[in-house]
Amino acid sequence: MHGGHGMTKHRIIYDTDPGIDDAIAFVFQTLHPDIELVGVTSVFGNASIDTTTTNALYLASRFAPHVLVARGAARPLRHPPPKPIPYIHGNDGLGDIERLGRVDKQVDARAAHRFIVETVRAHPGEITLLAVGPMTNLALALQDDPDIAGLVREVVVMGGAFGFNGTLGNVTPAAEANMHGDPDAADIVFGAPWKVSIVGLDVTHETIMTTAFLASLRDSASDAGGFVWDISRFYERFHVEEGLPGGIYAHDYSAAAFVVARESYTTRSGPVRVLTDGIAAGLTIQKPASMHGSAPDWDTRPNCDACIGVDANAVLELFANTLRS
Amino acid sequence: MHGGHGMTKHRIIYDTDPGIDDAIAFVFQTLHPDIELVGVTSVFGNASIDTTTTNALYLASRFAPHVLVARGAARPLRHPPPKPIPYIHGNDGLGDIERLGRVDKQVDARAAHRFIVETVRAHPGEITLLAVGPMTNLALALQDDPDIAGLVREVVVMGGAFGFNGTLGNVTPAAEANMHGDPDAADIVFGAPWKVSIVGLDVTHETIMTTAFLASLRDSASDAGGFVWDISRFYERFHVEEGLPGGIYAHDYSAAAFVVARESYTTRSGPVRVLTDGIAAGLTIQKPASMHGSAPDWDTRPNCDACIGVDANAVLELFANTLRS
Repeated sequence: MHGGHGMTKHRIIYDTDPGIDDAIAFVFQTLHPDIELVGVTSVFGNASIDTTTTNALYLASRFAPHVLVARGAARPLRHPPPKPIPYIHGNDGLGDIERLGRVDKQVDARAAHRFIVETVRAHPGEITLLAVGPMTNLALALQDDPDIAGLVREVVVMGGAFGFNGTLGNVTPAAEANMHGDPDAADIVFGAPWKVSIVGLDVTHETIMTTAFLASLRDSASDAGGFVWDISRFYERFHVEEGLPGGIYAHDYSAAAFVVARESYTTRSGPVRVLTDGIAAGLTIQKPASMHGSAPDWDTRPNCDACIGVDANAVLELFANTLRS
Repeated sequence: MHGGHGMTKHRIIYDTDPGIDDAIAFVFQTLHPDIELVGVTSVFGNASIDTTTTNALYLASRFAPHVLVARGAARPLRHPPPKPIPYIHGNDGLGDIERLGRVDKQVDARAAHRFIVETVRAHPGEITLLAVGPMTNLALALQDDPDIAGLVREVVVMGGAFGFNGTLGNVTPAAEANMHGDPDAADIVFGAPWKVSIVGLDVTHETIMTTAFLASLRDSASDAGGFVWDISRFYERFHVEEGLPGGIYAHDYSAAAFVVARESYTTRSGPVRVLTDGIAAGLTIQKPASMHGSAPDWDTRPNCDACIGVDANAVLELFANTLRS
């Protein structure tokens, strides 16, 4: 399904907690010719729901004024809300830069999960849910209307980790941030009968936007490139403190890239569980389709595609070309 | 610490649930010039404690008549005993071959954990605990006499998996058999203040004794080679059913090889927790020493060395050379 070949665009609801890397992925979606953004749903995560909703409205106002924004969950289904992480995304969630332009949008009257349900029902088989924050809104939508699982084109998730590069988590040794943010919701989403692809740390930690890459976009990709540069300054500082020589992990962008360039990813099929309690809450565990023997806690659930490898150069080139186009 | 260079031998207590691969590792230890086997402690696991103890006595009688054998735990600390797995190791736990020679040994009067405590105290700083089954005996020894942790030279464990080759477990999608066999014991052992190295599926799944390799030992390594060939016929059948083209994983041997050839392994340092409950009971999770940020459930515990890479050819050559010498 590629645009430019006369095929249907990917109609995306972007479920997001902006967040700097969320904003980078947003800009990409607004510029890619094969993507039609049909809505943005906010969720707590990288910042409070007030902040992420404000940021979603800002991003839409500046880069996609026609796109509806619906406010989503303020906290996980069952766990306490996560602690604020201003040292990663800034106090305002977007790197504390001066914001250009005005915010002339207001949130949709519907809660995010209702917006998801109604939009999916209005476009059966057409909507891709691109979820890059805690998946509370998707779980609430499923609880509200389980039949949407059969009406969604696909679900692409940024989150989790399967250990291929030695990493099972980033907020804890066992959990990636979005899974940790609402492990119950993630386990619900991975267990529902829809097509789910999971883009986790196994590939996002391999896809690094270096300082030079970001600077080159700043200098050549006009408004979007300058914006990506500006907001990534704060985020890059955090990455350098964490041991990266420079640049940032392209976490959320990787999930957006997967939608339009899945040929750049290697995936493994099999049901995925998310641990919901204990010291490893938020850990994603796949039973590979190749594994013999029964595993009752996995075997009743649908297969998901988990990304286990990436052609990072191709994915980064896609980003640069899209911003420059 | 290498023999042949005039240095002290590795004095090993082999804590084992034989088990075909346990027996293969046993034969290696009896033949390697840098290893002095000072005792064998049996534990439930690959078969019942009656069967594994019978097998330990048989192995010692045939290959190391001077070595003491102490009978160990019949079941895990808290979990129910695992189900029998005769389809992996045979009804008799050693591939159901005809047994040559007589068993003229009896078990030591001491329980395995007491044997461990007393032997460690008799040789302070000298004993290596090589544990290749559920670690119940080691945990009981620590509970009985916590100070032995400071008196053991090192603990080398076959068990666990950290995901580097995409695998977190073999008996479940989340757990390797020895960890699954007694996750509470494993979490106790990895949390004690002694030097622990963990040789798990990340390297044992990379170290395959092919049919041709085993046949060549049968033809060139006299008694030991023939024995390894004979007992591995049953075990190989299971591996082929699980998808291996032929041959067997060198699980327990890999831990024995690590003791004398650690230069063939790449390790990662950091505290390791074992999940003790839930669908992922037995999962090993390391906080890499390179990971920033606090992780209270890990940070109070000592670093372990987890094997994450292996020069499999060197390790296999070591086995062949040792059996042929």
